[in-house]
Amino acid sequence: MKKKLFSPGPTPVPEGVLLAMAKPLFHHRDPVFEELFQEVREDLKYVFQTKQDVLVLASSGTGAMEAAIVNTLRKGDTVLVIRGGKFGERWGEICEAYGVDIIPIDVEWGQAVDPVLVERSLETYPEIRAVLVQACETSTGVLHPIKELCEVVKKRDDVIIIVDAISALGAVDLPMDLWGIDVMVAGSQKALMLPPGLAFIALSEKAWGFCEMSDLPKYYFDLKAELKNQRKNQTHFTPAISLIVGLREALRMIKEEGLQNVFRRHEVLARAMQEGVKALGLEIFSNPPSPTLTAIKLPPEIDGQKLKRNLEDHYGLITAGGQEHLKGKIIRIAHMGYFEPSDILQVMAALELELSKMGYPVEFGKGVSSAQRVFKEAGL
Amino acid sequence: MKKKLFSPGPTPVPEGVLLAMAKPLFHHRDPVFEELFQEVREDLKYVFQTKQDVLVLASSGTGAMEAAIVNTLRKGDTVLVIRGGKFGERWGEICEAYGVDIIPIDVEWGQAVDPVLVERSLETYPEIRAVLVQACETSTGVLHPIKELCEVVKKRDDVIIIVDAISALGAVDLPMDLWGIDVMVAGSQKALMLPPGLAFIALSEKAWGFCEMSDLPKYYFDLKAELKNQRKNQTHFTPAISLIVGLREALRMIKEEGLQNVFRRHEVLARAMQEGVKALGLEIFSNPPSPTLTAIKLPPEIDGQKLKRNLEDHYGLITAGGQEHLKGKIIRIAHMGYFEPSDILQVMAALELELSKMGYPVEFGKGVSSAQRVFKEAGL
Repeated sequence: MKKKLFSPGPTPVPEGVLLAMAKPLFHHRDPVFEELFQEVREDLKYVFQTKQDVLVLASSGTGAMEAAIVNTLRKGDTVLVIRGGKFGERWGEICEAYGVDIIPIDVEWGQAVDPVLVERSLETYPEIRAVLVQACETSTGVLHPIKELCEVVKKRDDVIIIVDAISALGAVDLPMDLWGIDVMVAGSQKALMLPPGLAFIALSEKAWGFCEMSDLPKYYFDLKAELKNQRKNQTHFTPAISLIVGLREALRMIKEEGLQNVFRRHEVLARAMQEGVKALGLEIFSNPPSPTLTAIKLPPEIDGQKLKRNLEDHYGLITAGGQEHLKGKIIRIAHMGYFEPSDILQVMAALELELSKMGYPVEFGKGVSSAQRVFKEAGL
Repeated sequence: MKKKLFSPGPTPVPEGVLLAMAKPLFHHRDPVFEELFQEVREDLKYVFQTKQDVLVLASSGTGAMEAAIVNTLRKGDTVLVIRGGKFGERWGEICEAYGVDIIPIDVEWGQAVDPVLVERSLETYPEIRAVLVQACETSTGVLHPIKELCEVVKKRDDVIIIVDAISALGAVDLPMDLWGIDVMVAGSQKALMLPPGLAFIALSEKAWGFCEMSDLPKYYFDLKAELKNQRKNQTHFTPAISLIVGLREALRMIKEEGLQNVFRRHEVLARAMQEGVKALGLEIFSNPPSPTLTAIKLPPEIDGQKLKRNLEDHYGLITAGGQEHLKGKIIRIAHMGYFEPSDILQVMAALELELSKMGYPVEFGKGVSSAQRVFKEAGL
């Protein structure tokens, strides 16, 4: 059976990207690499919407999360961590590993953080040096209010905001420079339409200033050393050449479509998905939902793990379940990167069919037709 | 012009490996991945010649070097670092970044370390907890006496030997368990015939014991967390799936040829290369030379940088020059991984031709014929 990825990472990789990566390898000290890397570096700035250098690391996204912390902070620093899911928790875990103290804001899973709470914490704890948050919390499908959080943080010269945009960048409008995001982290295997293995990170002037004071140990993830090399279109250590070759193709696709069109496409795909889900009498779990994935709250009689397994076994569709206390209670369907309306129609129709088979009352076509209407109105 | 990699990383990737990696992606929580990872983990044990788990990391080889240090050592520990080239220096740099004190043994570039010096240092400085060395020092092409060093270290319960086998593993016989190598590190883009982006590390029981005492900070490179996950055929963080798909193919090729045959092939390729070089009246720079690359000392009238450039411009052959004080003075020709006799004949013939064009007296065919004789005698 054909398998189709609707998982929030890895996501489908365009055929042209796969084939580009299958070409014979070249050397990373070759002018061919430097030219490639220069193009990729420029296009990453376009996707990050920044004038700053976007650094490319050979690691998973978590590596870049660690890089964000160990390069900007000092031992014993205090940071505010927005914890509303597994990846919020990860920020806290990395900090703890490096001796950075955390003040958590624990948000109910499925909800976004209230910027007022962040502002209040910054007032109560003047020692806070950074606010750590996800743009999209992948485990719950929630989009946090990054713009509003940036406005809160921007008022303070001694605080930076560090945003994990791993499952948002390239799908959600996150204008780094305009909003004042100080550190933004991304990964290859999400909306950037590549296999996993590359991570990206960019820092504002303010964040680079923090790097000057940082005393946490780092070597592989030393961003100052990377910056020095990458400005020469080289990397500090051997780059993951084939993935960077693929990245060029993926970024070319994004540029050709145009970033604003990419955002709009994701917004329409998500809306179609959401309307379909609601038409089936189901609730969206996330408030507000990210345009990159739809987390659906399941009725008590439907076992989410079984639903996920059946979608895979019967139709080849790979979705994701809930994690930890959400296990079995939600299903997460991603639509970031290489996705188009027909993918949504496919997964919605399969979802209707499977829910019906599992005993949930479904009027066939009701979810699909709601999605269709969204696409028709949007002119897609 | 067709480009052919004779660089000591990246090395040529077999066509079958490239094509395997070009297949559509699957999810790393899929049983398909677990099956793949199980096979790969078994085959890595075969290549590492160990019963221990070989951990797969999404990073360049340097990431695994860092992992070796931050997982086994404590802040303020003292280690002995064999520095006879750029990668020996890298061991020292990582230690310094993490507050580990180093006692260097500075070996002349091009020479191997004398195990007696190591033994003497261990006697003089009983605080030494680890000996850090390269199996093959890529920058000089030297093979260090790992077996003998292991014998020195093995006598002490409180010392481990950490071996960077990045440009040796899969080409040179390094029986980890038999010799008593405590930590062995490797990378994907060398004799393992893959693009860069994966690193590997295995630890002896003794080294795992050191991990229990280690207090250096780590998160992305936390080997205990990796071990726990990889024993379930998963990874702690998103794995570089496509590279692991390629790895399976590459390891299957190694297994099919048989590890001892692979070692013998490399030994014969290296001998042919060395005989050819000597027949041209040139000296091998490395003592003893690694079977994975041949570093040639150039006569004063030949500019190594120009020679490297000409080999590339005229024949598409990508070699490597000397680094730091060796710039222009040596040329390094790698033959690890996907190499066979015809590759050696090709590069030797081009070397003759180019040296002659550059004014060095060459009797055409003299190097080639010496290499041919080696192959004939070896039955290759």
